[in-house]
Amino acid sequence: MDSETEPRLVTTRRVEFVDTDMAGIVHFTNFFRYMEQAEAEFFRSQGHSLALTKNGSGVGWPRVAASASFKAPAFHNDVLQIRIYVRRRGFKSLTLQFEFRRSETLVATGQIKTAYCRFRPDLPIESLEIPAEFDSLLGPYDPTADKERSDKNE
Amino acid sequence: MDSETEPRLVTTRRVEFVDTDMAGIVHFTNFFRYMEQAEAEFFRSQGHSLALTKNGSGVGWPRVAASASFKAPAFHNDVLQIRIYVRRRGFKSLTLQFEFRRSETLVATGQIKTAYCRFRPDLPIESLEIPAEFDSLLGPYDPTADKERSDKNE
Amino acid sequence: MDSETEPRLVTTRRVEFVDTDMAGIVHFTNFFRYMEQAEAEFFRSQGHSLALTKNGSGVGWPRVAASASFKAPAFHNDVLQIRIYVRRRGFKSLTLQFEFRRSETLVATGQIKTAYCRFRPDLPIESLEIPAEFDSLLGPYDPTADKERSDKNE
Amino acid sequence: MDSETEPRLVTTRRVEFVDTDMAGIVHFTNFFRYMEQAEAEFFRSQGHSLALTKNGSGVGWPRVAASASFKAPAFHNDVLQIRIYVRRRGFKSLTLQFEFRRSETLVATGQIKTAYCRFRPDLPIESLEIPAEFDSLLGPYDPTADKERSDKNE
Repeated sequence: MDSETEPRLVTTRRVEFVDTDMAGIVHFTNFFRYMEQAEAEFFRSQGHSLALTKNGSGVGWPRVAASASFKAPAFHNDVLQIRIYVRRRGFKSLTLQFEFRRSETLVATGQIKTAYCRFRPDLPIESLEIPAEFDSLLGPYDPTADKERSDKNE
Repeated sequence: MDSETEPRLVTTRRVEFVDTDMAGIVHFTNFFRYMEQAEAEFFRSQGHSLALTKNGSGVGWPRVAASASFKAPAFHNDVLQIRIYVRRRGFKSLTLQFEFRRSETLVATGQIKTAYCRFRPDLPIESLEIPAEFDSLLGPYDPTADKERSDKNE
Repeated sequence: MDSETEPRLVTTRRVEFVDTDMAGIVHFTNFFRYMEQAEAEFFRSQGHSLALTKNGSGVGWPRVAASASFKAPAFHNDVLQIRIYVRRRGFKSLTLQFEFRRSETLVATGQIKTAYCRFRPDLPIESLEIPAEFDSLLGPYDPTADKERSDKNE
Repeated sequence: MDSETEPRLVTTRRVEFVDTDMAGIVHFTNFFRYMEQAEAEFFRSQGHSLALTKNGSGVGWPRVAASASFKAPAFHNDVLQIRIYVRRRGFKSLTLQFEFRRSETLVATGQIKTAYCRFRPDLPIESLEIPAEFDSLLGPYDPTADKERSDKNE
């Protein structure tokens, strides 16, 4: 299940003053906030939520890994275009890819890998098979195409 | 119960790079983070915690109000001295006062008013009388001295 | 120049997952971020910016004081309505007032007092008279109505 | 220049309340803040700073890439041990590796790749050769051992 050429969602985020640092550019940690915000918008676009936990119970998508490459600085008041791609729809995990652009400039790229998990009081977080209700958002799971799966938790 | 002249705790916090903004100074929101960190250290100094909630149940100290006045800019790598005073030990609430100094310079002052509360699943947050186990940290409640109490939630 | 009854700007902000804490509610520091974001939108509505500093020079609006009162908890995915009022247009400073609502529930109120200032390399920040170009955004300065002015820096 | 087995610095960071999210664990973005804090401490250990920019001029270490893998959740009040390794000392860039542990539990690993750069007003950020003054901190540059160098900016 290779990365796609068409984004699943295109959204924007304006760089706020608080996102800048004394070097005059966006502090790198904020790109991870921007990714999560765009991911949440992607989930909401079909009525899903990143977190359905309540009182210590529920399901959610804790992060397995996150990465970003910074290609060009972003500045206060920039309106960044964010494109989301489904990089991999695994059996139990999901890898989203992100691109940040200011006009034609590629500002940053990133990935977030999340696992679909159950939270229960006083028990460890448990990863689950991603249910079929996400198929229309993420595409169905295709084991023959999933060359990246390396263990039972993916 | 007037403000004190002797701080209950004196601690320090180094200004991190991420705390600065493009104006080259500490973004004002970080002073509220610093206050909470110092408050947590004050609570820990006698074995208490700001939050004992678990699975939606427990007790904690949600904020009723917070304020700060900014007297002088703070910069990257400044080691700020933070002094905590108990401004008011109410029946159900607590007001802490904070002073931030860099050497002799008063950088900022602030206050956080919190209420001792019970969290229970699917029920509204409920304010409680501050129990006697906090008397050694905060001083006992003295109703005759508490001229600021204006309603039953304080 | 008393507080107004009609907001100058009404905007919204969705509570992001990262804004929540382990008590399941919005961490209080985020309300100050939300205020700044709304303030920036208010400034942009007439082509102004909170920060025109560049290379250590320029003008901006550093904060003199900030405060908030928290009336009801806010939760993940809440879409908060934010109303901005000009509480006081001083000679050199500006006090904005904010109200946060979720439907009919008043969630929080807040104030930010800022001073119009010049930044120059290697010199202290200097407060300036707010120029006439802000009159259409903030209203003109009316010394006879400004009962709160207490010193030359306001 | 392979990764090392001995950490260059071992430090700790206590998880603050504000670092948690509604799932009751540390929000993943904070691990990047923790890495930067530990990196700053590593630099300070020999009198260096992450940022010497002032008024838009100076030198600093903007980020080229950052990544993290999350192995186990971290909780409020955890005191995480952070180990820093020099993963690669390139000609113009530096890759640090981080490990986060709570007692024997490996909580997370991460990497930050930075480039030594000059900031000048109104000019693009320019990457520079890492000067010899960093040799005692990072080790000298060894081109024969640097198999990862792929272009002139590394």
